[in-house]
Amino acid sequence: MKVSIDNDIVTIGPQDLRNLVTDLLEKVGVPRWDGATVAEIMVNADLKGVESHGVRWLDIYLKRIQAGSVKPVTDLKVVQEKAGLLLVDAQGGLGQVAFTKAIEMGIAKAKTAGVCAVGVRNTNHCGMLGFYTELATKANMAAMTMTNSTPLMAPWGGTTLSIGTNPISFGVPTQGEPVILDMATSASARGKVFLAAQKGYKLPDGVALTKDGEPTTDPKEALEGILLPVGGPKGYGLSLIIDIMAGIMTGSNFGQGITSLYGDLAQAQNIGHFAVLVNIEDFLAVDDFFAGMQRSRTELKSSKLVKGFTEIFLPGEIEANTLKQRTEKGAVLPLATWSVLDGWAKKFGIQ
Amino acid sequence: MKVSIDNDIVTIGPQDLRNLVTDLLEKVGVPRWDGATVAEIMVNADLKGVESHGVRWLDIYLKRIQAGSVKPVTDLKVVQEKAGLLLVDAQGGLGQVAFTKAIEMGIAKAKTAGVCAVGVRNTNHCGMLGFYTELATKANMAAMTMTNSTPLMAPWGGTTLSIGTNPISFGVPTQGEPVILDMATSASARGKVFLAAQKGYKLPDGVALTKDGEPTTDPKEALEGILLPVGGPKGYGLSLIIDIMAGIMTGSNFGQGITSLYGDLAQAQNIGHFAVLVNIEDFLAVDDFFAGMQRSRTELKSSKLVKGFTEIFLPGEIEANTLKQRTEKGAVLPLATWSVLDGWAKKFGIQ
Repeated sequence: MKVSIDNDIVTIGPQDLRNLVTDLLEKVGVPRWDGATVAEIMVNADLKGVESHGVRWLDIYLKRIQAGSVKPVTDLKVVQEKAGLLLVDAQGGLGQVAFTKAIEMGIAKAKTAGVCAVGVRNTNHCGMLGFYTELATKANMAAMTMTNSTPLMAPWGGTTLSIGTNPISFGVPTQGEPVILDMATSASARGKVFLAAQKGYKLPDGVALTKDGEPTTDPKEALEGILLPVGGPKGYGLSLIIDIMAGIMTGSNFGQGITSLYGDLAQAQNIGHFAVLVNIEDFLAVDDFFAGMQRSRTELKSSKLVKGFTEIFLPGEIEANTLKQRTEKGAVLPLATWSVLDGWAKKFGIQ
Repeated sequence: MKVSIDNDIVTIGPQDLRNLVTDLLEKVGVPRWDGATVAEIMVNADLKGVESHGVRWLDIYLKRIQAGSVKPVTDLKVVQEKAGLLLVDAQGGLGQVAFTKAIEMGIAKAKTAGVCAVGVRNTNHCGMLGFYTELATKANMAAMTMTNSTPLMAPWGGTTLSIGTNPISFGVPTQGEPVILDMATSASARGKVFLAAQKGYKLPDGVALTKDGEPTTDPKEALEGILLPVGGPKGYGLSLIIDIMAGIMTGSNFGQGITSLYGDLAQAQNIGHFAVLVNIEDFLAVDDFFAGMQRSRTELKSSKLVKGFTEIFLPGEIEANTLKQRTEKGAVLPLATWSVLDGWAKKFGIQ
């Protein structure tokens, strides 16, 4: 394994990092094939520069598997099937494994019915949501994905933690890179606030309140306090809808019923995922759709620019560019993230 | 008809206002039944206090019908059907009539397939999007609706008008009022900027740029300039996804290809609508879903409050409260809006 450390930044080959994650997961009982799925999704986030959603999560996954609240073997059970609908129970397994399999089953149904609504019940943290959206775009689906999560936001006007920073993602294919929107419904993802705390940055205004409901730009106060929704009541509304569709509707935990990921490690979170997959060619010939996407892209990329901007990007474009670079040059991790992984490797006797 | 005018505010009974709208539409060739649908949707917005999306739109509808770019008779053609998918061509008819019928047809399909993706091609402005979402919730659907529209926003970092303030709406039923989120992807809906100009209010920061890309709080400069997306790149991404799913994917106009609603009145806009309807009981018994919604509501409503707030509201709750009041006391219109309607009534010889 080739690892270089420079100025608290660690660079490591993508396949080496994937192998390490897979090896570590195997040590706690995750079948190698499932571990490789989790590794692929985590490392993909790091390669895309979305390090807030990358391998830094492995630590808590390993702890939760050891504590018994995340099952190492993901035993997916189909609860309900209709022509365009699929509900599966992850039975406490890994979110990455459960959501990937559910999306793949949903794609097959959407190819016949035109669309599939996919629910995953009693599942766990699934990492970067856009991965699942992108997976669906590879089968020429227009996709929407959602997951609910630990309550870190309050309803608009409130201070009681009641809803997650619940992300929502939309994506469509093009002849080149897919367009992938992947957004937390908070003004900033908690992972980004965490990294700001780690790196000692201040937060912009409008990102967080202290636990008493006062505005703050201190990431440490924010982590103990309340994250604010994007666009005020709009982000609050979106977060709530995600909690309802991914949580309540799938029969999973929701709202204040979801315990902290970092609290009692033996207590299962049992969150929910939800997706809608639309088979594009049932609306429009795929070539015509691609032609439309190309025209849209040309319009957007040739926009006149606001002072200080140098280029217009489509959603997911910056991440796709970073993925290309880092796939060649290696994944880039903060030393703090790497040290935790390295600690686990030493503990398990992995070189 | 009982109309009272006080301090430039006009109060009028809901059914009188619906009848007036229906009568005016009939004079330009809209069948009475279709006109009643348009009237219901418009007046519903005014009764909910969303006057930016109410009867003030009738003026441009009448002008466009007279100019031939909106067809008074909405001749819906089914283009594609699968178990869970429906694409209809509105053939230039009224958005309200086309989207209402398409949603009703989609509900029937979702009852069998578990979900239905509904596209409407070559349609027109459909008013308050939340109406269609609410219509679906009455059949115990969890619904998402979208429409694309005239480009009034630029891509993030740009100044060329390329995408609409494209709204998105989500809704679910409860045992009481449904939860309805209905949001423009701009920081503020254009209708609200229009009303600010009419009433002489300043805009908050972050709502608009001048046409040269400089920040402005002057609603008149904003109307000639560029509306900003909610949450910066997030709102831009959402708006683009809506343009893709409602516009490109349905085979309708999109992006810069949508001409101004107020420009050449003889040129059809041919925009697109899109909806996803999920049959809740295929995921979870409706009673269990309602019990979850009740618990969620209780959690949110009992949140501790931020200083200055007096109550937590669920999405759509303020509008539902206003609807109750105004259904009794009458719709409330600015005199300017009423005068335009009154002018049309006089022109057509309606008392």
